[in-house]
Amino acid sequence: MARGRKGRAHAAEAGTGRMVDYRHLRNPFPQQPVFSEDEIAAMHDTALRVLEELGLRLLLPESREMFRRAGALVDEDSQMVRIGRDIIEAALATAPRSITLKGGGPGRDVLLEPGVITFQSGASAPHATDLERGRRPGSLRDFRELMQLTQAFDVLHMTQTPVEPQDIAPHLRHYATTEAQLTLTDKPLCVFARGKGQTSDNFEMIRLIRGVDETAFSTAPHCFTVINSNSPRQLDMTMSQGVIDFARAGQMVVATPFTLMGAMAPITVAGAITLSHAEALAIIAMNQLARPGAPIMYGTFTSNVFMKSGSPALGTPEQFKATLAAGQMARRIGMPWRCATGSAGNIADAQAAHETQFALWACLLGGATTVLHSTGWLESGLSLSYEKFITDVELLQMMAELCAPTTANAADIGFDAVTEVSPGGHFFATGQTLERYRTAFYEPLVADWTNFGSWTEHGARDVNARATDVWKAIIARDWRAPVGEDRIEALQEFIIRRTAEGGAAPTG
Amino acid sequence: MARGRKGRAHAAEAGTGRMVDYRHLRNPFPQQPVFSEDEIAAMHDTALRVLEELGLRLLLPESREMFRRAGALVDEDSQMVRIGRDIIEAALATAPRSITLKGGGPGRDVLLEPGVITFQSGASAPHATDLERGRRPGSLRDFRELMQLTQAFDVLHMTQTPVEPQDIAPHLRHYATTEAQLTLTDKPLCVFARGKGQTSDNFEMIRLIRGVDETAFSTAPHCFTVINSNSPRQLDMTMSQGVIDFARAGQMVVATPFTLMGAMAPITVAGAITLSHAEALAIIAMNQLARPGAPIMYGTFTSNVFMKSGSPALGTPEQFKATLAAGQMARRIGMPWRCATGSAGNIADAQAAHETQFALWACLLGGATTVLHSTGWLESGLSLSYEKFITDVELLQMMAELCAPTTANAADIGFDAVTEVSPGGHFFATGQTLERYRTAFYEPLVADWTNFGSWTEHGARDVNARATDVWKAIIARDWRAPVGEDRIEALQEFIIRRTAEGGAAPTG
Repeated sequence: MARGRKGRAHAAEAGTGRMVDYRHLRNPFPQQPVFSEDEIAAMHDTALRVLEELGLRLLLPESREMFRRAGALVDEDSQMVRIGRDIIEAALATAPRSITLKGGGPGRDVLLEPGVITFQSGASAPHATDLERGRRPGSLRDFRELMQLTQAFDVLHMTQTPVEPQDIAPHLRHYATTEAQLTLTDKPLCVFARGKGQTSDNFEMIRLIRGVDETAFSTAPHCFTVINSNSPRQLDMTMSQGVIDFARAGQMVVATPFTLMGAMAPITVAGAITLSHAEALAIIAMNQLARPGAPIMYGTFTSNVFMKSGSPALGTPEQFKATLAAGQMARRIGMPWRCATGSAGNIADAQAAHETQFALWACLLGGATTVLHSTGWLESGLSLSYEKFITDVELLQMMAELCAPTTANAADIGFDAVTEVSPGGHFFATGQTLERYRTAFYEPLVADWTNFGSWTEHGARDVNARATDVWKAIIARDWRAPVGEDRIEALQEFIIRRTAEGGAAPTG
Repeated sequence: MARGRKGRAHAAEAGTGRMVDYRHLRNPFPQQPVFSEDEIAAMHDTALRVLEELGLRLLLPESREMFRRAGALVDEDSQMVRIGRDIIEAALATAPRSITLKGGGPGRDVLLEPGVITFQSGASAPHATDLERGRRPGSLRDFRELMQLTQAFDVLHMTQTPVEPQDIAPHLRHYATTEAQLTLTDKPLCVFARGKGQTSDNFEMIRLIRGVDETAFSTAPHCFTVINSNSPRQLDMTMSQGVIDFARAGQMVVATPFTLMGAMAPITVAGAITLSHAEALAIIAMNQLARPGAPIMYGTFTSNVFMKSGSPALGTPEQFKATLAAGQMARRIGMPWRCATGSAGNIADAQAAHETQFALWACLLGGATTVLHSTGWLESGLSLSYEKFITDVELLQMMAELCAPTTANAADIGFDAVTEVSPGGHFFATGQTLERYRTAFYEPLVADWTNFGSWTEHGARDVNARATDVWKAIIARDWRAPVGEDRIEALQEFIIRRTAEGGAAPTG
């Protein structure tokens, strides 16, 4: 019944005979190098030297102990851990090349391996913003609405944590967000790693909704978390705990140093990516020591700062090059790779659009397996725009259209159609056109292709005004979870019990 | 003296120590196929069949006579000309693989050959629009201002005819536009082919300003014209005359069928590009019959219509694929290739930005030698936006940055810089950063990377408001031509004389 509702909603959305499978995309774009193979080898080798000779500061004792047992050189006073390349090589040998994230419904499993392309919305913004309600601290209402928007578009393959619901107390927040993800969508989900208590709650909530026991859960990832190192060369307790807990539970880690060239990383593309690579390798090693074969992605988030203010810039030429370089590193180690787009703009205008698309192209030409922050990100992630969410989805759908193959057989080329039309005539009525016109072209979600007169008559509304219509219509639907009532009840009982027990405060 | 002024203006514009040569760009992007080699061969062969079996209607008697002498089958009653593949092959054998357009100053010559990338502004819009003056019929004032904007940015390699100055009588209009192009810029220029009289006037004006005689002029192109066929399979008198006149004068023709899938071309990507290819080959053949070896580019402008209204759409997935396919055809015949971007949007918002960048990427991944309509185009070319001109230039500059090589030698990778910084520290003061920070990053023209608070304090101005500042500042400069006064006087005398003689009415 739930499926039936969803099916109809989906067909109504399409509004056309054209049905392209946006759920399963393979990257059709050629992969672009920025450095030579020798240069990439030198960067990889320098990253190994950074780990061996300089090491990382690991704040979590358990993580130091794991590395010590594996043969790393540990100084407990400074908390510095120097990691030999044998440890890294062993980790790269056990890290999987292909991962399937389980979804909650048919067609919702997500394959992550080189060659596949998937998209995720903007994540973790402290603020939400839209034209009607303005910019405000993120709330649970925003979070839930953004889950509806995420569910509405097949081109978003997983659910993210798009805004931080600041109206919910931190020790209860994960109940609200994970519940929203699990009951308003049926996609694989991203959860925060904010301490053992929250992580264990999150895992139990997923098992309750998805109807799997601990054994089944631990052999197939349903969720993932993003682990950012505290660049340069440091990993805090909470993040390290997440790396270990997710590995042991068989859930996916995305190892993503956040390195801004000239700030927490060298000012050069080569230097920043080398440092990022070293830190990612350390996280991968920690993860694989906790459980060899645990699902983990290689991740990158490298851009540059604006030198006049020190603030981060996104969608810059330097970020583009860093992304291509990271893609080369990912291919070198053969792992599925997470990259990101986004915008530093303060408003959903042409600047923000250009930056987002520019950085997105870097991800695609770099061969990213998944692209984070694909929709809605403004202010380098400090706010999530509803209108930009919609206009960015349009861009993703256009990218997805490019993933579909195009043929040029005799009927496609259509010599006969050309024969039918006199010089200077038109093709509106050829047999070829009549046969194909319903499904030939992508139909836009929010773009307006009417002429200036017609557009003016209809109020001269810009794309953000039209995007407002789109998101409001989606949110106004009588939204039901694509899961059974019994599982939702079990989930709610769990949340009530855990809340009564005091919840789980975040750590770190 | 003129050079000195120009030089200073240029340095002031840059405002930074960073100097990247935007005048000479090679395309760094991998070239993406959309069809197999077999499919491309079938499309090429079908195009030859269209020319041989169906033929084109050529309205100009002289052009039919040229083809008849070359062995084509001509029916004078229907004006239909069927062109054998031997004629096409001979034309492809004499059409140059590399063309240098002469500019009016040092560093302004433009090489056009596969592997090079060049950009041109939006062209031929009947309306101009900006936030201060609104949307209005294009005027000479607009045309002249847009010449100033074109000259201000090295990333625009030629001058176009961005708006149609409707306030100037058609028989005098070319004097005003060509004068503006020649005295406000020193770049190679595009002129219309609107009959023998205007063409001969334009050529003489160029010779006067550039100080070359007819012989020198005829051996090196200083200008070019875009020839659109009247698809399907028809070429009017004026366009045909242009193909012939430009060839005989040694000036460049850009052979560009304008084919909208489902309207004046088959509804399929394969069909539309096959028809476009056939028509381009016919123009190339006519041109090379007029003068073997004459400079000519292969051109494409293929998009789809919006099926609900029949109006053209730009920046669509189908246009993207058509552009890639056209790039494959261009590589097959080995000629420099002109493609285009643009937007169907009615206002310079995120839709317009996304469409323009999306279509631009198709040109880059298709291997275009020159990209027309790169800046300012709205309404599929019915208006030219000043603000969008500036935001699009920013995009082109970011693309140009990607053309510059990036290295990863030991100093770039910077192991020493990593050594200098403690875990969790920052790189603001490393030797590597201090040495490079002035020139490490692209500095934006109009993007704002300040934070939300600072942006709000400064008036919360969107990118179009800031773009207004940029274009107004450029236009407010005391602009002087980078040419000597004596040549300008000679040009003005010519225009006065020709005006007194009655000018030259356009034909066709």
